Amino acid sequence: MKCRVCKSLAVISLPRHNSAFCKEHFFEFFYNQVKKAIKEFRMFRPSERILVCVSGGKDSLSLWHALTVLGYPADGLYIDLGIGGYSEKSKEMAEKMANLLGRRLIIVEFGREYAPVNVVAKRARRSECSACGTIKRYYFNRVALEEGYDVVATGHNLDDEAARLLGNILRWHIPFIAKQLPVLEEENELKKKVKPLCRLTEQEIAAYAFLNRISYIRDECPMSQDSTSLLYKRALNLIEAESPGTKHFFYLEFLKQRDIFSVSPTNHDRTGIKRCEICGSASQTDICSFCRLVSYLQPLKT
Amino acid sequence: MKCRVCKSLAVISLPRHNSAFCKEHFFEFFYNQVKKAIKEFRMFRPSERILVCVSGGKDSLSLWHALTVLGYPADGLYIDLGIGGYSEKSKEMAEKMANLLGRRLIIVEFGREYAPVNVVAKRARRSECSACGTIKRYYFNRVALEEGYDVVATGHNLDDEAARLLGNILRWHIPFIAKQLPVLEEENELKKKVKPLCRLTEQEIAAYAFLNRISYIRDECPMSQDSTSLLYKRALNLIEAESPGTKHFFYLEFLKQRDIFSVSPTNHDRTGIKRCEICGSASQTDICSFCRLVSYLQPLKT
Repeated sequence: MKCRVCKSLAVISLPRHNSAFCKEHFFEFFYNQVKKAIKEFRMFRPSERILVCVSGGKDSLSLWHALTVLGYPADGLYIDLGIGGYSEKSKEMAEKMANLLGRRLIIVEFGREYAPVNVVAKRARRSECSACGTIKRYYFNRVALEEGYDVVATGHNLDDEAARLLGNILRWHIPFIAKQLPVLEEENELKKKVKPLCRLTEQEIAAYAFLNRISYIRDECPMSQDSTSLLYKRALNLIEAESPGTKHFFYLEFLKQRDIFSVSPTNHDRTGIKRCEICGSASQTDICSFCRLVSYLQPLKT
Repeated sequence: MKCRVCKSLAVISLPRHNSAFCKEHFFEFFYNQVKKAIKEFRMFRPSERILVCVSGGKDSLSLWHALTVLGYPADGLYIDLGIGGYSEKSKEMAEKMANLLGRRLIIVEFGREYAPVNVVAKRARRSECSACGTIKRYYFNRVALEEGYDVVATGHNLDDEAARLLGNILRWHIPFIAKQLPVLEEENELKKKVKPLCRLTEQEIAAYAFLNRISYIRDECPMSQDSTSLLYKRALNLIEAESPGTKHFFYLEFLKQRDIFSVSPTNHDRTGIKRCEICGSASQTDICSFCRLVSYLQPLKT
């Protein structure tokens, strides 16, 4: 197997691009995909302050690493959800990357301040994944606002986005489909959110992490075993194995065609924002979803 | 496992309906699904003459059987494509059903008149499945016209329709998505086409055939091994196993929401029909796709 560019020994084969690359040209390919996503979807400029949401996994750590290599000044945010050894180990990985890059890592100790996410989820009768999502979205925005960042970046990859799109389509959640973009613009006090790895697969990001000797937590989150997104990923991988490029085309062509899902302009805006009566942050309801969630931890004093 | 209706011993479990049925109430369920499809999509009335396209498989034979039980006067059409023993055996099954129902079976000997479908496909540099589709669609319409049938019915089931929809969506074939309906209305000389089994899964139809002791050809067509529709079915079955009802919701909810894909009214009409210069049948081009296909068998005399 030879590199498509220089014909030296390839280290990775990419069937969806009908290509193979040596280390050097794989990095070139990788950075080009990141740059293309940033440019195509107008994610940010080098003058803007970027906050990368770091979980300790390969995607978010590779994103932080790649943005730094590409000259974007990005800091990290780690939210400790109190999932025992898993959270401890993830935090270590995030701290290691912060040291390597010489950038700031902000740590939010949710687990210690409130309770482990599984306890919160149980009290609120929600799934762990759903409670985790609420908590993370809340802090991403709050920390970005308080610390003066312009953009919040997450490590969602092509597999994540394609699986989410498939799930929304199988259930015909039209408003969710309409707003499934790699960029959500800033509006009111909701910071701009971007997904610079949306053109790269899990396998490509794993290869980037491996070739850069990035230490990351390899286990799936112990809470996410039953996640439907893993099921949709398995189904898409089954198709991808026999028909390489399906995932890529499915998601990226959707972004071109997606206007057909915008039945009404209210489908993808973020209007109707009020202030949460408890924490004062932007919210679509009187009490924001984060404050509603943690309210289950103790009887509300009325 | 008990029947949901009468609590006697169930013979089939239907996870997607969270149900199980005894033989009697399974038949009731089955016929209700067929009647619902016929009524909901205005497929035909009992006064109309129906031509069922019979392949010898469980779907088309069960369809012919069920329509007869429900009081619809349906005859059968079998097209012998010359696929060796497979075609011989399929034809036998079709003839057996015609005798059982006491209805007419029209047989078209394509394989003998022209050549086996794999030879035609090879000469025309097309896949067998694609050549087969062209030939079948041609005769379905031509025989219905010549013999005075009002409607052509095919045995496509929920798995077929959901797999086709998934394939069209993964490739964002918007015009194909827009016209993927269980009914195509008559227009010019193109006869009305309907799919009365579109609310029933393969498994349910296999159970119907088994419980009615219908003999059918169990092997997949030897030409269709690489068919992508089988791949999409496997992917959907993977999801269905963990999330029963997904296929059902995906396809039937699509039919309600599908207007969003009708970007322009020309997406799903059958206008622009001319006459084929060779056979005189309705065609969108000067020479119809059937005549173009068989023209590869011998140099055209001009």
